[in-house]
Amino acid sequence: MSETTTSQDSSVGIVEKKYYTFAKPPEKLVLESGASLGPVTIAYETYGRLNEQKNNCILLAHAFSGDSHAAGFYATDREGDKPGWWDFIVGPGKGIDTDKYFVICANILGSCMGSTGPSSINPETSKPYGLDFPMMTIGDMVVTQKALLDHLGISRLLAVIGGSVGGMQVLEWCVRFPEMVRAAVPIATTMRHSALAIAFNEIARQSIMADPNWKHGNYYGGKKPDMGLAVARMVGHVTYLSDEAMRRKFGRKLQDKAHFSFGFDGDFQVESYLHHQGSKFVTRFDANSVLYITKASDYFDAVEQIRKPNLINGTAQNEIKYLVISYSSDWLYPTYQAKELVQALKCCGQDVSFCEIEADCGHDAFLIEDQRFTTLIGGFLDGIT
Amino acid sequence: MSETTTSQDSSVGIVEKKYYTFAKPPEKLVLESGASLGPVTIAYETYGRLNEQKNNCILLAHAFSGDSHAAGFYATDREGDKPGWWDFIVGPGKGIDTDKYFVICANILGSCMGSTGPSSINPETSKPYGLDFPMMTIGDMVVTQKALLDHLGISRLLAVIGGSVGGMQVLEWCVRFPEMVRAAVPIATTMRHSALAIAFNEIARQSIMADPNWKHGNYYGGKKPDMGLAVARMVGHVTYLSDEAMRRKFGRKLQDKAHFSFGFDGDFQVESYLHHQGSKFVTRFDANSVLYITKASDYFDAVEQIRKPNLINGTAQNEIKYLVISYSSDWLYPTYQAKELVQALKCCGQDVSFCEIEADCGHDAFLIEDQRFTTLIGGFLDGIT
Repeated sequence: MSETTTSQDSSVGIVEKKYYTFAKPPEKLVLESGASLGPVTIAYETYGRLNEQKNNCILLAHAFSGDSHAAGFYATDREGDKPGWWDFIVGPGKGIDTDKYFVICANILGSCMGSTGPSSINPETSKPYGLDFPMMTIGDMVVTQKALLDHLGISRLLAVIGGSVGGMQVLEWCVRFPEMVRAAVPIATTMRHSALAIAFNEIARQSIMADPNWKHGNYYGGKKPDMGLAVARMVGHVTYLSDEAMRRKFGRKLQDKAHFSFGFDGDFQVESYLHHQGSKFVTRFDANSVLYITKASDYFDAVEQIRKPNLINGTAQNEIKYLVISYSSDWLYPTYQAKELVQALKCCGQDVSFCEIEADCGHDAFLIEDQRFTTLIGGFLDGIT
Repeated sequence: MSETTTSQDSSVGIVEKKYYTFAKPPEKLVLESGASLGPVTIAYETYGRLNEQKNNCILLAHAFSGDSHAAGFYATDREGDKPGWWDFIVGPGKGIDTDKYFVICANILGSCMGSTGPSSINPETSKPYGLDFPMMTIGDMVVTQKALLDHLGISRLLAVIGGSVGGMQVLEWCVRFPEMVRAAVPIATTMRHSALAIAFNEIARQSIMADPNWKHGNYYGGKKPDMGLAVARMVGHVTYLSDEAMRRKFGRKLQDKAHFSFGFDGDFQVESYLHHQGSKFVTRFDANSVLYITKASDYFDAVEQIRKPNLINGTAQNEIKYLVISYSSDWLYPTYQAKELVQALKCCGQDVSFCEIEADCGHDAFLIEDQRFTTLIGGFLDGIT
């Protein structure tokens, strides 16, 4: 996802990345595929304070290439470093008000931003897992988040909130641990990937696997599949934007020439932008993590479980209050998919609010500061009783 | 573009690919970039007969990866081979009726399907051009088509018809040689690429150039950049389809398994489909041709010329009758871009008809047999006087 447009000062201030490790020998975590994994480390951050009743906890689920750093700065940050990816909405007095709520954000399983993933050391070989890392699902991500909450002594979430792949985790929380969830805010997401979304993910994977430096996932310590990963990122990036946003932002503007170059270095600003996004991504993200996380999102399919009224059946203890948010120009998970979700939830008698936000900036809109979004989330959280 | 859905019998029967070579030494063709090229060979086919008045000629302009083989079979075709790409509309009694019209289709400059392109032999080195091939434009393609018509003794076209990049050639004909064009049918096209279209083309180019076998274009005689080209084709292919068509055709259907593989070989039918499209493309198309043709389409910008009433100013001898066709689910060149074209032409007092065809199959719709489309084109051509 693209970076947020937050200002340089963060109101949560200095934060710290923490780690929780579980499924230590002889234990292992059994995944949805049947494979087992251990030990499992989950990187996380918290903002605000847990109250005595332990009933003010909000879990944030990040998107595909996000991390646990949702707000604030690190003590090691330097001048010009940006705060966490949702700093504009997480903080004292903000939409997700850290004066009221204890906010947790955990890096997803399979990522490379602190939690265990394919670039982590496999204890059986003392080398990075690579493709020996077991395939994991959105459900497995949620199970690790549950383990973290158990560790922190939190048995119930006031809300779970997330966009895109984070929204899938929100839905998975609701079908897997409904008794732990008071409210859920799935944003710019879907109950399951369309063929179009799978196609773009597969193109990204093919691009990575076509890079000879990928070496079937065993590239750690050597040359990385940067070229393939960069192209994969460019593909992803286009799906996060919209036709309108790209016209507004780039149109046909040339990079730094008055005339066409009649060469292949890139004439248009949109080309330079994509090159930049590709180059930047390879310095911070692991190609194998892209493979595993995209696959997990392709596999995700909550339709049957959401439609099963016996799982989330509107009984008092399991009633979840939903706020479903979509963006008008999101063509990766278009509004019609959000409406299908709303309909499925309503058919099970759930308490659902739905809002399509008019925005021309595409799927990534939830990562861009927007007062309407902040007010919507803040108002919804205030109304949870 | 994807294959058409025509039946195995073609009513134009056996056809022959012909070649016209010009700009022979000491002559050279000067291109829009200022570079010169020669000799230039244009592969073409014809269907029907030129009448004595030489006023029944229709030029078909093919799309990006198309060729001169618009209809019929070759004498060398084998059982199961498909007829030309527009066989469903080109033939006796069909929409483009070869009992009435003399139809020409020429392979575009820069391609690899018979006309001179980067895989052709550079007479100065006796090796394939590779990146020594000069950058060419849609205008240059049209100039070579004009040279072919001169050679065939045709000074005026009853109509020029084409979809996608072929539609750009149609528009270029109208602004460059308006006195030669009686009617024009630009289909599923645009006056200029949006940032989104440029972005997808650039991703395709980056994918090819990231393949180490590409070797800065000098791969002829060695290993070809097949992996990069396959990924480029997959990207292109997704843009030719639509969300609706992909849902209808593939949805989340699994390839041949009852369960997920929890591996990276591809579980979903849409993945296998993309792999198939990628593999098929590398056997028939040249990677450098993709680079040159995508760049030509990115450079194309006819907005100013179309808006200049002094170039196509509605005087008797220059009046062109237009039929602009768009498809409702085409998100590469959406209907709003066709409407911009219609508006620009109307502002210059041109005779323009416009039709948006409701179809859920995306940009490639013009390559799929559709009676509405056939009737529309047939009726329009009948009405030209």
